[in-house]
Amino acid sequence: MLLVSERDGRGAAVAVLGASGYAGAIAAALVQRHPGLDLVAITSRTDAGRRLADLYPQHRVPLVLEQPDIEHLAAASDAALVAYPHAAAATTVAELHARGVLVVDFSADFRLRDLSVYEQWYGSHPAPELIEQAVYGLPELKRDGIVGARVVANPGCYPTAALLALAPLARAGLIEDVVIDAKSGISGSGREPTEETHFVSADENVNPYKVGGHRHTPEIEQELALLAARGGGDAPGQLAPITFVPHLVPLDQGELVSCYVRPTRAVEQRELDTLYRDAYAGEPFVELADRAPGVREVRETNLCRIFVLADERAGRLCCFAAIDNLWKGAASQAVQNLNLMLGLDEREGLGVLAA
Amino acid sequence: MLLVSERDGRGAAVAVLGASGYAGAIAAALVQRHPGLDLVAITSRTDAGRRLADLYPQHRVPLVLEQPDIEHLAAASDAALVAYPHAAAATTVAELHARGVLVVDFSADFRLRDLSVYEQWYGSHPAPELIEQAVYGLPELKRDGIVGARVVANPGCYPTAALLALAPLARAGLIEDVVIDAKSGISGSGREPTEETHFVSADENVNPYKVGGHRHTPEIEQELALLAARGGGDAPGQLAPITFVPHLVPLDQGELVSCYVRPTRAVEQRELDTLYRDAYAGEPFVELADRAPGVREVRETNLCRIFVLADERAGRLCCFAAIDNLWKGAASQAVQNLNLMLGLDEREGLGVLAA
Amino acid sequence: MLLVSERDGRGAAVAVLGASGYAGAIAAALVQRHPGLDLVAITSRTDAGRRLADLYPQHRVPLVLEQPDIEHLAAASDAALVAYPHAAAATTVAELHARGVLVVDFSADFRLRDLSVYEQWYGSHPAPELIEQAVYGLPELKRDGIVGARVVANPGCYPTAALLALAPLARAGLIEDVVIDAKSGISGSGREPTEETHFVSADENVNPYKVGGHRHTPEIEQELALLAARGGGDAPGQLAPITFVPHLVPLDQGELVSCYVRPTRAVEQRELDTLYRDAYAGEPFVELADRAPGVREVRETNLCRIFVLADERAGRLCCFAAIDNLWKGAASQAVQNLNLMLGLDEREGLGVLAA
Amino acid sequence: MLLVSERDGRGAAVAVLGASGYAGAIAAALVQRHPGLDLVAITSRTDAGRRLADLYPQHRVPLVLEQPDIEHLAAASDAALVAYPHAAAATTVAELHARGVLVVDFSADFRLRDLSVYEQWYGSHPAPELIEQAVYGLPELKRDGIVGARVVANPGCYPTAALLALAPLARAGLIEDVVIDAKSGISGSGREPTEETHFVSADENVNPYKVGGHRHTPEIEQELALLAARGGGDAPGQLAPITFVPHLVPLDQGELVSCYVRPTRAVEQRELDTLYRDAYAGEPFVELADRAPGVREVRETNLCRIFVLADERAGRLCCFAAIDNLWKGAASQAVQNLNLMLGLDEREGLGVLAA
Repeated sequence: MLLVSERDGRGAAVAVLGASGYAGAIAAALVQRHPGLDLVAITSRTDAGRRLADLYPQHRVPLVLEQPDIEHLAAASDAALVAYPHAAAATTVAELHARGVLVVDFSADFRLRDLSVYEQWYGSHPAPELIEQAVYGLPELKRDGIVGARVVANPGCYPTAALLALAPLARAGLIEDVVIDAKSGISGSGREPTEETHFVSADENVNPYKVGGHRHTPEIEQELALLAARGGGDAPGQLAPITFVPHLVPLDQGELVSCYVRPTRAVEQRELDTLYRDAYAGEPFVELADRAPGVREVRETNLCRIFVLADERAGRLCCFAAIDNLWKGAASQAVQNLNLMLGLDEREGLGVLAA
Repeated sequence: MLLVSERDGRGAAVAVLGASGYAGAIAAALVQRHPGLDLVAITSRTDAGRRLADLYPQHRVPLVLEQPDIEHLAAASDAALVAYPHAAAATTVAELHARGVLVVDFSADFRLRDLSVYEQWYGSHPAPELIEQAVYGLPELKRDGIVGARVVANPGCYPTAALLALAPLARAGLIEDVVIDAKSGISGSGREPTEETHFVSADENVNPYKVGGHRHTPEIEQELALLAARGGGDAPGQLAPITFVPHLVPLDQGELVSCYVRPTRAVEQRELDTLYRDAYAGEPFVELADRAPGVREVRETNLCRIFVLADERAGRLCCFAAIDNLWKGAASQAVQNLNLMLGLDEREGLGVLAA
Repeated sequence: MLLVSERDGRGAAVAVLGASGYAGAIAAALVQRHPGLDLVAITSRTDAGRRLADLYPQHRVPLVLEQPDIEHLAAASDAALVAYPHAAAATTVAELHARGVLVVDFSADFRLRDLSVYEQWYGSHPAPELIEQAVYGLPELKRDGIVGARVVANPGCYPTAALLALAPLARAGLIEDVVIDAKSGISGSGREPTEETHFVSADENVNPYKVGGHRHTPEIEQELALLAARGGGDAPGQLAPITFVPHLVPLDQGELVSCYVRPTRAVEQRELDTLYRDAYAGEPFVELADRAPGVREVRETNLCRIFVLADERAGRLCCFAAIDNLWKGAASQAVQNLNLMLGLDEREGLGVLAA
Repeated sequence: MLLVSERDGRGAAVAVLGASGYAGAIAAALVQRHPGLDLVAITSRTDAGRRLADLYPQHRVPLVLEQPDIEHLAAASDAALVAYPHAAAATTVAELHARGVLVVDFSADFRLRDLSVYEQWYGSHPAPELIEQAVYGLPELKRDGIVGARVVANPGCYPTAALLALAPLARAGLIEDVVIDAKSGISGSGREPTEETHFVSADENVNPYKVGGHRHTPEIEQELALLAARGGGDAPGQLAPITFVPHLVPLDQGELVSCYVRPTRAVEQRELDTLYRDAYAGEPFVELADRAPGVREVRETNLCRIFVLADERAGRLCCFAAIDNLWKGAASQAVQNLNLMLGLDEREGLGVLAA
């Protein structure tokens, strides 16, 4: 594989596996429009033979979905975005990696460092030997590691928003404990039609789901602990277990996390503002808002919009982050990671509008 | 005023003031259909002269809205439901009360026992002398007081749900601190068209509002403290300040509160279940669910549906309550209160479907 | 079977078959609350063994769904509401009818008088011998026939609204041709989760479906022709074929039909108003509106709200009718029919609010 | 004013007047991102002094809204997009035009050729002398005229969709008469908060409005007649008056027109397909679909997606067109027009994804 800069003006060849899902389809559309990438193949086990434009006219990707064939894909591609469910992803990721293809994996398979934690939440792991090499792909926190990585574990949508909301506090050792109440549009439940995703079930409704047991919990805890450790605060593992409760809200895409932190010491608004400004200065995809954000404000962007408020009366810190769960929470963040892996400008193909 | 039982089969004469608002209109519709009540007048300062059925065809109340005239209303009515904003309500409530009319007040004016707390959150109080006599109208917690009351302060929608969700824990002295994350449909913002309530602003959106400063906060704190005190647990006032953050979600009516409690000691699921079953046994309008409730499940009912879960991993208790913000959160709870005040069956006119 | 009036104060025993579907579940809830009916059984082939209250907490029907057993159902029931898909319904309806049970059939199986038309649109008919005896159950047009009927074919949702919107014109021989553009909430597509009913597909969308080929077309044409014939206008069959195009709109339940009539002669607004007032005077479930109706105005009612306007500029008549597709378009209309069949007040159990 | 090609690599200087409205704000965002244009000023009479990014964070336009000042704007701008309501626009358009500024006018003021028709639907005209010079800016039908124009009347959203749906039939003289039933998202009612645009009014609702009297009616009739005349079919004015009925549907942006044509002679599907393929071959912003389109498929694009079906049974032609009412129905079509006026590639800055 050659870096784009070595390719005589042609873009890196990219395949998108699992392109018939919501996130995979957006990833395919982003790659297709990307000035530095060539979309060479899109695959789907369930919809092979159909044009992606028939499934998703709005994305206007005229390619035909193929059955995934690792040898063929490895020969044709410099990099692959693998939008498979967990467990299904690991084997494919390992096979592509073994053939020299850069991989961004949308699943949870390579996000958790500790195999026993993975097994506790997801069951047995099909390719544990690769865990060590994978880098957790949250660029705002792990940029340096991603640049040299050959396998990147694209974060879950909730961890993306929650970690960006909490990272400055975690690094500063300010989190005594935290409750994360998240609200997600229905696309977060995936494309499969179920009773839960039926319009009539979701419309005019709000309901919590997987209370106390959502699989993004250990992912958030792992990264918060690492941040706390690296930040010079408490050692990893000492962070109290979080309570994380997601809710379904009647909209298609968009996600808000509301984080309620009991701090280790009193923190005033001014200190909070400085902490976040310093943490995110120069970040192209983080916006610090001066009022609580709505998810509309980041729809179909790679942006994360953050607002923090010290509830001095109650001695608690309220941190809100809004993202598009299918973009920054999945597809566009994968492209951001791929840009970094390929030595491209991180913002390429992601439509940073202002500035 | 005569009790209904003394009225020779005729119902108590009831006026609804402020009937052009969302909650007032539903209250008028409920009174009109009520077998034990006669709807004798509906008023509106902004829409006087219009038929309520023109403003809200769905309610099918053919009466014409009048300008409010206290003497006339007092002469014609045994009881009044006053659906005015705070401050505007207090004077009218006092005038009706002085003329012997039973009053259920939808505003916040008589909910807070402590005048200084009221003034801190709402400004000066137009009729402080009446605070003492008013009863906080959450029937599941204050039934006895309501039965003999002549002025009832109908609770706010958020306090209704939050208190029903938390009362058993508060009474048992189990709340160390609590975060309340609430989600409300847009009708909670009232009928006035604003940028915030415009369809295009609210659709496909979720956003927190009045973070750390919503006026329902002291109301929840007051009642939790009273419960804790009466329950034999800690004394009132010792309860830590709560953090309460409401969010707007894109639906018309319905409200979910998600309460995250750090308990004073470890609590297991079994104990939690027993506590709530005992607390709400026989309550006609509280349902204990065996899974997290959606707001659709209580739409257009006087029901509060509650689910509690001990997140034993994190040592936290998660309590969810779903209500219809315009019904149990306002109009139908007012009728429930009025039923109690008049000596009627509490369930009369409120359509309890299943026995 | 005995009429209710002969049953010593007990209600008629009613079974609801197919009660796990949207319309069947509402029918079960209506029967349960009905003062003159006893809900004795609810059935479902797919969800037998579950409580209906678990599938639809909002309906609060505590009965358990049974596998349908004709002998058992016939023994236990005076009447049955059969909410099955077409073809599946016919055999069951015939079996129940043969055992003396009154039947209201929600399917299309007994709506079309002409077997060849049925077969053209639906395929072969499992019980054609019963067609003759079934009465088309649109009470506002066929009340007398329904009173004595033992099998009633409950109309389709679109025909219900379209026929009520057009009947006065059809009877007066005023329809030269007509275009019917209908808009329906997603519940009209049924409870089965599909790509089309997925929240993400339907949200923020409007789209026509089955253009020129929806099976309600011949049903509307049949009844319009009969009305024209009986009305003393043109003979049946001379009516020009209609164009009927339904559209899915992003709401759960509610249906609007917009009918555009080219009249056989010039018609002024005044004549139109008189025609409709005369046609629907005294009808408890038809409301003539003085402005175009919204579907919210009839949500969860058995009402049809109609507005007619002579577009004198273009020489066309615009007739709009709004119903709740699951209520007047299915479940509550079935109860209205059952009331008539049993000799009860047509309005019983259907919550006519005003007057 | 210089053409872009003459400006030494800098883009044409463009002002957007009325940029605080929904369409104006999108126009500002499109101009800002446009590689060949410079956004030099944005104005608002109601929100001057505020950053556009505060009103619409999602558009990320950091400029501050100014009070409109014609001299200043004319000095600074080569071209102006004027997003004012009708009547208010005409004077401003005339003033800018007199100072040599190219203008695209979003209002109806210069769309109607016949002053008497304008006055009948809109009242007196503030600048009738300019009507003659203005070109109706529907590029797919009027491209040549727009290229040399100095004032372009940007079409209404409904006429844009309806005319693209019907133009091939009109030119071929195939329209005997037509009914247009349109469905629009709530943004079509503008940014002003009203009872009608309140979330609670629009949610779960569908309703017709301005039945038989919407002001887009004469605009559609004018252009259909012109097409019929130029097409060599019947002379203009002989076209029968249309019936046009718009409906509000609960979504934010998106518009579907369903056109029902009684043709002058029998037309088969094959002929219809050929007619439309020929008419729109090579058009960058028209897509011919092979099934009925949903408005999601064109959301936030300048595309119009069309589907035509011969309902041979009823002898009627059904033509559907979906657009985004704020984009192709207003803001992006204005930029498309401006591109043509400035000698730029018509597609510049409008994100044609495929091809």
